[in-house]
Amino acid sequence: MKKLWQKNWKLDKVIEAFETKGDLLLDQKLVAYDVQGSIAHAKMLYKIGILTEKEFDGLHVGLQDILKLHKAGKFVLKTGDEDMHTKIENYLTKNYGDVGKKIHTARSRNDQVLTALRLYSKAEITKIQKEIQSLIEAFKTMQSKYGSIPMPGYTHMQKAMPSTIGLWVGSYIDSLSDDKEMINAAYELIDQSPLGSAAGYGVSIPLDRKFTAEILGFKNVQENPLYCQHSRGKFDAAVLASLTQTLLTINKFASDALLFTTGEFDFFHVAQEITTGSSIMPQKRNLDVAELLRSKVHIVLGNYTQIVSLNSNLISGYNRDIQDSKKPFMESLDITLQSLKVATILVDSITPNKKKLKVSMTNDLFATEQVLKLVLLGDNFRDSYQKIGKKYTKG
Amino acid sequence: MKKLWQKNWKLDKVIEAFETKGDLLLDQKLVAYDVQGSIAHAKMLYKIGILTEKEFDGLHVGLQDILKLHKAGKFVLKTGDEDMHTKIENYLTKNYGDVGKKIHTARSRNDQVLTALRLYSKAEITKIQKEIQSLIEAFKTMQSKYGSIPMPGYTHMQKAMPSTIGLWVGSYIDSLSDDKEMINAAYELIDQSPLGSAAGYGVSIPLDRKFTAEILGFKNVQENPLYCQHSRGKFDAAVLASLTQTLLTINKFASDALLFTTGEFDFFHVAQEITTGSSIMPQKRNLDVAELLRSKVHIVLGNYTQIVSLNSNLISGYNRDIQDSKKPFMESLDITLQSLKVATILVDSITPNKKKLKVSMTNDLFATEQVLKLVLLGDNFRDSYQKIGKKYTKG
Amino acid sequence: MKKLWQKNWKLDKVIEAFETKGDLLLDQKLVAYDVQGSIAHAKMLYKIGILTEKEFDGLHVGLQDILKLHKAGKFVLKTGDEDMHTKIENYLTKNYGDVGKKIHTARSRNDQVLTALRLYSKAEITKIQKEIQSLIEAFKTMQSKYGSIPMPGYTHMQKAMPSTIGLWVGSYIDSLSDDKEMINAAYELIDQSPLGSAAGYGVSIPLDRKFTAEILGFKNVQENPLYCQHSRGKFDAAVLASLTQTLLTINKFASDALLFTTGEFDFFHVAQEITTGSSIMPQKRNLDVAELLRSKVHIVLGNYTQIVSLNSNLISGYNRDIQDSKKPFMESLDITLQSLKVATILVDSITPNKKKLKVSMTNDLFATEQVLKLVLLGDNFRDSYQKIGKKYTKG
Amino acid sequence: MKKLWQKNWKLDKVIEAFETKGDLLLDQKLVAYDVQGSIAHAKMLYKIGILTEKEFDGLHVGLQDILKLHKAGKFVLKTGDEDMHTKIENYLTKNYGDVGKKIHTARSRNDQVLTALRLYSKAEITKIQKEIQSLIEAFKTMQSKYGSIPMPGYTHMQKAMPSTIGLWVGSYIDSLSDDKEMINAAYELIDQSPLGSAAGYGVSIPLDRKFTAEILGFKNVQENPLYCQHSRGKFDAAVLASLTQTLLTINKFASDALLFTTGEFDFFHVAQEITTGSSIMPQKRNLDVAELLRSKVHIVLGNYTQIVSLNSNLISGYNRDIQDSKKPFMESLDITLQSLKVATILVDSITPNKKKLKVSMTNDLFATEQVLKLVLLGDNFRDSYQKIGKKYTKG
Repeated sequence: MKKLWQKNWKLDKVIEAFETKGDLLLDQKLVAYDVQGSIAHAKMLYKIGILTEKEFDGLHVGLQDILKLHKAGKFVLKTGDEDMHTKIENYLTKNYGDVGKKIHTARSRNDQVLTALRLYSKAEITKIQKEIQSLIEAFKTMQSKYGSIPMPGYTHMQKAMPSTIGLWVGSYIDSLSDDKEMINAAYELIDQSPLGSAAGYGVSIPLDRKFTAEILGFKNVQENPLYCQHSRGKFDAAVLASLTQTLLTINKFASDALLFTTGEFDFFHVAQEITTGSSIMPQKRNLDVAELLRSKVHIVLGNYTQIVSLNSNLISGYNRDIQDSKKPFMESLDITLQSLKVATILVDSITPNKKKLKVSMTNDLFATEQVLKLVLLGDNFRDSYQKIGKKYTKG
Repeated sequence: MKKLWQKNWKLDKVIEAFETKGDLLLDQKLVAYDVQGSIAHAKMLYKIGILTEKEFDGLHVGLQDILKLHKAGKFVLKTGDEDMHTKIENYLTKNYGDVGKKIHTARSRNDQVLTALRLYSKAEITKIQKEIQSLIEAFKTMQSKYGSIPMPGYTHMQKAMPSTIGLWVGSYIDSLSDDKEMINAAYELIDQSPLGSAAGYGVSIPLDRKFTAEILGFKNVQENPLYCQHSRGKFDAAVLASLTQTLLTINKFASDALLFTTGEFDFFHVAQEITTGSSIMPQKRNLDVAELLRSKVHIVLGNYTQIVSLNSNLISGYNRDIQDSKKPFMESLDITLQSLKVATILVDSITPNKKKLKVSMTNDLFATEQVLKLVLLGDNFRDSYQKIGKKYTKG
Repeated sequence: MKKLWQKNWKLDKVIEAFETKGDLLLDQKLVAYDVQGSIAHAKMLYKIGILTEKEFDGLHVGLQDILKLHKAGKFVLKTGDEDMHTKIENYLTKNYGDVGKKIHTARSRNDQVLTALRLYSKAEITKIQKEIQSLIEAFKTMQSKYGSIPMPGYTHMQKAMPSTIGLWVGSYIDSLSDDKEMINAAYELIDQSPLGSAAGYGVSIPLDRKFTAEILGFKNVQENPLYCQHSRGKFDAAVLASLTQTLLTINKFASDALLFTTGEFDFFHVAQEITTGSSIMPQKRNLDVAELLRSKVHIVLGNYTQIVSLNSNLISGYNRDIQDSKKPFMESLDITLQSLKVATILVDSITPNKKKLKVSMTNDLFATEQVLKLVLLGDNFRDSYQKIGKKYTKG
Repeated sequence: MKKLWQKNWKLDKVIEAFETKGDLLLDQKLVAYDVQGSIAHAKMLYKIGILTEKEFDGLHVGLQDILKLHKAGKFVLKTGDEDMHTKIENYLTKNYGDVGKKIHTARSRNDQVLTALRLYSKAEITKIQKEIQSLIEAFKTMQSKYGSIPMPGYTHMQKAMPSTIGLWVGSYIDSLSDDKEMINAAYELIDQSPLGSAAGYGVSIPLDRKFTAEILGFKNVQENPLYCQHSRGKFDAAVLASLTQTLLTINKFASDALLFTTGEFDFFHVAQEITTGSSIMPQKRNLDVAELLRSKVHIVLGNYTQIVSLNSNLISGYNRDIQDSKKPFMESLDITLQSLKVATILVDSITPNKKKLKVSMTNDLFATEQVLKLVLLGDNFRDSYQKIGKKYTKG
């Protein structure tokens, strides 16, 4: 398919595949958002007199067409299409005539993809926020069911002090509450419209950027057009850092779940339906799901590394290196969303093994309490500590 | 020196050095904050009746003593001291008698170090916020002096569209404004008092955590004691991610500064006083400072990797692995602070080479403007693009 | 489809998708290697008397069948298949009867996937080695064509000393030669057969591991079965680290190519066929390909981070977390292979702009030579340096 | 102190501190290697007739002086010294007259620091190799003492198959053997002399680089002077990647040690002398040392990230960004060395809890063996698996 920039030369085929192959699969997930951005842009061009009403109507119908085809799985990007922006303009021109040649007036693929990615991010983050809430609810249910049951508290993986299921589960509820705040902060940051920044230097026609920002539901216009470009990597990084908070919470819960369901600890049981077996060992029932939840923070950490590292040491203005940040960015949003859903199922399926928990509440857990009893009787802390400590000293 | 936990065995010397050597250097920077936390804790113990007024006064004087010694460089942690908490308690006991043995009543080194680190972080972040503002001011001064001077705008490192020094510098001002917001969000997150969470499971004595939080200037109490522990790695990561935003901004500015001051571009000159020479090549004058500003985001990225990676796959409760996050955490705050100061000096020292900028405003930069002129005359965008494009096509 | 371990419970559908969805796409690329491993295993079972000749023949035919289907794109893994191992056993049992139920005798999916991954890696690395050689040849051709042409040498992005195209290009030839050595070292490391280690603890039947190692072309048997498991993450990391060497070389060349083809430097031209244009700016011709080559080391760095980070803090024996290392591992091999091919095209397309290079050989480049001339006349170095330095000092 | 390049301007003090403060501490550790390189360089200058015998003797004595001062802790780099190269030349000139002004003839600080770093690396790696061997010996001793004692083998943190202490410990012996090979490969790579490459473009005087390489004990000369520069980051990365292999081995052993010494598993005991207590809980005895061993691979992973990331997107020739790789590089060598020493102490201190291990060898561990017994009696594997599996299925 003809490139938007095509003149008297053709791009080498190997180079073309290298530049676009993986990216087209990602663009496929952004089509609806790109159409949304294009409609807003066209509406604005009509408002400022660049498009006639008829032209806008034509483009609008064409763009709605694309959306329908896309939803039906019939607007599929293939090698040769370069990107979704190209395919959309080409589709409009082919099917709706010269009006298609007007859709790109006063915009660049640079601000277009920025806009599509922001809309996509906002939608995904909204889903993630909902799933965090679901996970919080699952923990709260667990807490209200089993909260008062005592369990040992650990430090250095050794028994430390008496705890309860309520305290343990409560730590995850508070953790997720903070996680939500951090994701909110990232959302606030990205909720700025880059549309109209063109290639990073604006255009010589006065656009109504506030108008498109409002149509698209952005809180405000991101004013400096060059900063629109520079903010892409920064915003991607900020979003991933906020997701990492949530995945760290899930990672710790999965780590606990795996330890506390070992045969040796045996504090909790999980529903058989979420365990898997072994191809060779017939007795096995493994909590693979917790292992695959545990691994996810590492994946997003690597994705963050990619995004920060590839966005560094680049001069100002668009550099195509950042195309390679699309995959780690979009993948991380999806990983977080799926992990939250699965973590909620895991929490729902856990039941305490009360017997084992009871016998685990051994005396040593109460050593500090004994020290503090002596303190309340008037002894100083350190001497009381030494006194009680003697009971636990060998030799 | 005797460990707080020492009973009938002695720690192997090699192990002791491995566990504490590097950490003591970091603790040295936290002493004032640890004393501050200790005073608040003692005040609260007095309030709830664990300490008498006299005992509190004794501890208070002793802690002020330590502070004075520390400020005079005479409270120096050495191998054998284990950590600052130990040295402080030992100092109090040695110099103020049995009251020293009471300071650790109902607290753990776990919540103590958390408290000291939060106070330290809040203080450092406050300095960083101020330096961001100074850097913004430097850019604004530059903008008001030279803002209207035209300069080429680049994409893909090739001339793209007309820009101005004002537009270019403005991108950094807007970038830093967002950076401030992200650091604010991290500050809000960490502004919670962990004091009173003890070893992660609270204590059997009812503490007045709200009271200590207020004395120490925390916005609120971080309620769940186990989450206090878990939040350390998460908060460290959140803070570093927010600093990374600032360092990405500085990285791009340094990258621009290095390119735009090459002999070939020669758009800007810098004061001789911030350049360095070569030991072998007598003609050289290098902008090393921009190179060393450019490198910093990579350092903090690696530090972030350390913190997220080492905080993962750990079960709940304190695990000593996280001691190793102290260095990358504290170092990153310092790197950011220093980088901001130095970046401000760099900005202050830059002057445009007007002549070179002027001749760089070549016709090709205006190709898009020509296209849009045709559009305003009624042509469609894509055909106008092709028409103008012909002028720039070889062959 | 029935799982190999399926008994009286069914895996939750959401959990199943979470655990297998992405992995099946990767397994698809390993099918041929898994079949290869299965044939070797079956041959060995026949040799040690577990399978009859007839049974072996049956399995052999069945496995060849699968290979043919696979090559024809008709052996496609879908959600519900769990993994390729399961699909292969199920296919054999369904189409070849009870003999299919014998293929898994004395093996685990753990050693199976290890074997398939090692065979895959060896094949991919062999391709990569060939492409490194091609890239070296391209640089050598460039060197023999243009080697003697002078060009400025840079330090700190400023002109430093006289250089030549030959010296510059030669640095990449030497770099790639070292890169090959490092990839060889990684190849040597992974060239060990894990087949027969079963789930990490061997089996109670004496297998002939040397026999399968030979059939599969491994240099030797990896003896300790538990280490076979532990080596997966380590070997993945070692391979990626070796690829990173190559990608660092490519990254630097791409960085040079982008700078030296800016309008301002203009030292080299590239064939139009490997450049791309802009959707909005008709005059543009960008070297996107070099930008996308430059970005790749960052991607593989992030992948390395994922692999090392997710393989850490895991106890001995198989943990399913490591399934998530398959993607970054396989992707990195592919990225390196494609980058080498594309870099070769880039090198082939570069021609020097002799005029611009000539005028760039300014006097300042020879300042050190002048110093050394004075040295040869008997002056000491530092005073000569100062003498020549005066010529280049303003004010 | 006067800079080597100082002419008619002075470097801003804040900039100077930013550029050199941390670096001077690192240079301090390299002084002996820099002197070694300087002696070799001087010897070569004498050989090719640039220095007279008397001049060489003068420099030689002066350099030996510096070495003695350094060993006595009296050659201390301070802010203002810029770097060790500068301090050394200034010392020679001040104390030995004009001959000091000749030491820098035909060399640059660029090849000087490269040389010092390589010599340092080679020495540190040699120590590390020795410590790996000590750790292997410790594991072998453990194996010969307790090797035949049965212990459960785990997958997914659940009991899987019967294992032995010998098998478990053997996995670490094999792992360390591979680790040694990878460190050897890195050593081979860096064993090339960069001395004589000057600022990356050689010099106009014919140096005898083979001669200095031999004196310094390098296997060969690294020919291309520009590649000498480019190889720094690559070699640093290669060395760190090889160290990561060792630290991954230690990380897994530490993870096992922590789990297997929990009260719940209780498979092994450790000598009291390597455990530490709690400041608040008198009963505690924690294996902190294993936690701090476990954390180290994460630190070096972050250091690797720093090195690869900051070496990327830099054009050819020296760029000062790479100064910031000195710290993560040198620190990683030290961390690995210390970790090996401490891991050896840990291994030496471990004793099995035979009673607990014995009762842990439960029937379920032998389920696969039972399946294979049926197989040897003629049943097929999958049906036998199902038959035995029924025993372990609830409901």
